[in-house]
Amino acid sequence: MPLSSLQVAFLGPPASFSHQAAAESFRRATADLVPHVSFADAFAAVQRGDADYAVIPFENSTNGSVVQTLDLLADRNDLYKDVKVCGEYYLTVHHCLVVRKGSYPGGLPSYDGSITKLYTHPQAWGQCDMFLSRYFKGVERQDVSSTSKGAEIVAKDTAEQGGAIASRFAAEYHGNGILAENIEDRSDNTTRFLILRNIQSLRTGEGYHQSLSIPPYLSAPAPAPASDPAPGQPQSETTHKTLISFSINHSSPGALASALLIFKAQGLNLTSINTRPSLKRAWQYIFFVECGRQPSNENKDAVLKALNDLRMVAESCRDLGTWRDQLGAETLQDV
Amino acid sequence: MPLSSLQVAFLGPPASFSHQAAAESFRRATADLVPHVSFADAFAAVQRGDADYAVIPFENSTNGSVVQTLDLLADRNDLYKDVKVCGEYYLTVHHCLVVRKGSYPGGLPSYDGSITKLYTHPQAWGQCDMFLSRYFKGVERQDVSSTSKGAEIVAKDTAEQGGAIASRFAAEYHGNGILAENIEDRSDNTTRFLILRNIQSLRTGEGYHQSLSIPPYLSAPAPAPASDPAPGQPQSETTHKTLISFSINHSSPGALASALLIFKAQGLNLTSINTRPSLKRAWQYIFFVECGRQPSNENKDAVLKALNDLRMVAESCRDLGTWRDQLGAETLQDV
Repeated sequence: MPLSSLQVAFLGPPASFSHQAAAESFRRATADLVPHVSFADAFAAVQRGDADYAVIPFENSTNGSVVQTLDLLADRNDLYKDVKVCGEYYLTVHHCLVVRKGSYPGGLPSYDGSITKLYTHPQAWGQCDMFLSRYFKGVERQDVSSTSKGAEIVAKDTAEQGGAIASRFAAEYHGNGILAENIEDRSDNTTRFLILRNIQSLRTGEGYHQSLSIPPYLSAPAPAPASDPAPGQPQSETTHKTLISFSINHSSPGALASALLIFKAQGLNLTSINTRPSLKRAWQYIFFVECGRQPSNENKDAVLKALNDLRMVAESCRDLGTWRDQLGAETLQDV
Repeated sequence: MPLSSLQVAFLGPPASFSHQAAAESFRRATADLVPHVSFADAFAAVQRGDADYAVIPFENSTNGSVVQTLDLLADRNDLYKDVKVCGEYYLTVHHCLVVRKGSYPGGLPSYDGSITKLYTHPQAWGQCDMFLSRYFKGVERQDVSSTSKGAEIVAKDTAEQGGAIASRFAAEYHGNGILAENIEDRSDNTTRFLILRNIQSLRTGEGYHQSLSIPPYLSAPAPAPASDPAPGQPQSETTHKTLISFSINHSSPGALASALLIFKAQGLNLTSINTRPSLKRAWQYIFFVECGRQPSNENKDAVLKALNDLRMVAESCRDLGTWRDQLGAETLQDV
């Protein structure tokens, strides 16, 4: 029986950065990429089983955490109890100055200054400040709801000579020409996306992954090696990351420090901490702790043990999934 | 020589919630409350000495932390090196349905349904959903830049019968009438404001506070008691809170847990943690740790010791100030 295509939810509109992240994450699979208008819609699609996966922004290297994603992961009303993280994808944000196809064939060196209006998402203006100051000083700017929308307007409008700041992905999607590439001030502006799946779904289990040649970081964590490596040698090149949420009783002194100590006791390295209001009581928080480990025989139960210990001190506690790190410890030091 | 009035910066426009928080915090002092158009302007005014204090939102019990404030406290470019926190103020957000003065003298019981348009900040619609569904179903809504702006429009416009969702403070400021009070769905929606001062300023030192009868939480922490209280008795009713920012080398396993352990080792109870991107390297963070202690002879050097120990493990570390808790441990348990 042939398998139907994977359904992958992303945060719309089409040609958004989430779309690009989904396309690149699932480039080796046969997948239908489906736009969703809100974060909650994408979570709900995975919970219902309408989507096999969802690709959701989690944090940006410049702007920080995406609170909408944290609030849905907090799942205060138990709406998404089967949704877990199974992978991550780092997308570096590169902007282009896109135009109508066929205009300015000589490119930027012969650009004649005839663009009269620029379109993009409000955040992108500031990210391309140096380029805009040099080539488009004084040109009218119009905010639009997404960089993709700006590319679309410019591609369709023949009445004016417009330009848009958008990704190469959006330019190709809407059929734009590209006047200049990599026009962003900082070349390291990167968004990390989480890839979510429904843990009850057979379609997203390990065997299914392998039959479709999905990138390895989408499959379940590799089993620990059968025998120990030589002393001093790393046991695995890939760090496994785990996301855990918990809430504690703040009136108990030292409760948060005790909870965080549990990770250290199990050899789990804390790589990020986020907090959101619990909404049960004012000034009580839900903590999101991301921790990493180099998988080995010794620590194969580390996450389970940490969860068990956490349940002793936390008011609530939830395992939000484990996946393979795509950044890598070496990269982390060098970035 | 008479002292000139205190200058207190708040985040504008006039009659904003920051204005209200500033007015209530400094109600016992002779103070000029001065609106500032941005968070950065208010910080800069304190650093330059143009303002003695600034009142800045730090977190909301529903929406969480205010990232603009965290980014300014992070002070990545050393612009605000003398700005420290010296107090806090909790403002519970109560909304009113405000109208032009003199309209609807019979109040809500005799309201005839003649309001044709409502104005408020986008966030306030959702906070008053039940009241609006009951009394104003189908009435046109217009977003405005602040709740105060909506009250101002309704007070001035005689051509239409308008209503606005705004605070009693804004209604009194703009001279509105009030059709209904406490129309918010949740009565516990509270914003915590931080009070900032310039540590180089003589005008905001302890002596100056006392001469002006400023609320005690604006003055420097009380000295530790000269002798120990009876065993089992709390040594002070007021917790002292301290805010510390630091960054660590993430490539060193356990570095974050070790940093947090330092607070526990000094008997400092962690009450909040926030993170923001360092902007030096991707996926490196600045941590903001808020910790509390009941002042005693034993722990009078706890913050200094913690800072010293942190400097051994952190790449950078900064004391952002100590102040008296206004919530109180008892309240915290009961909220």
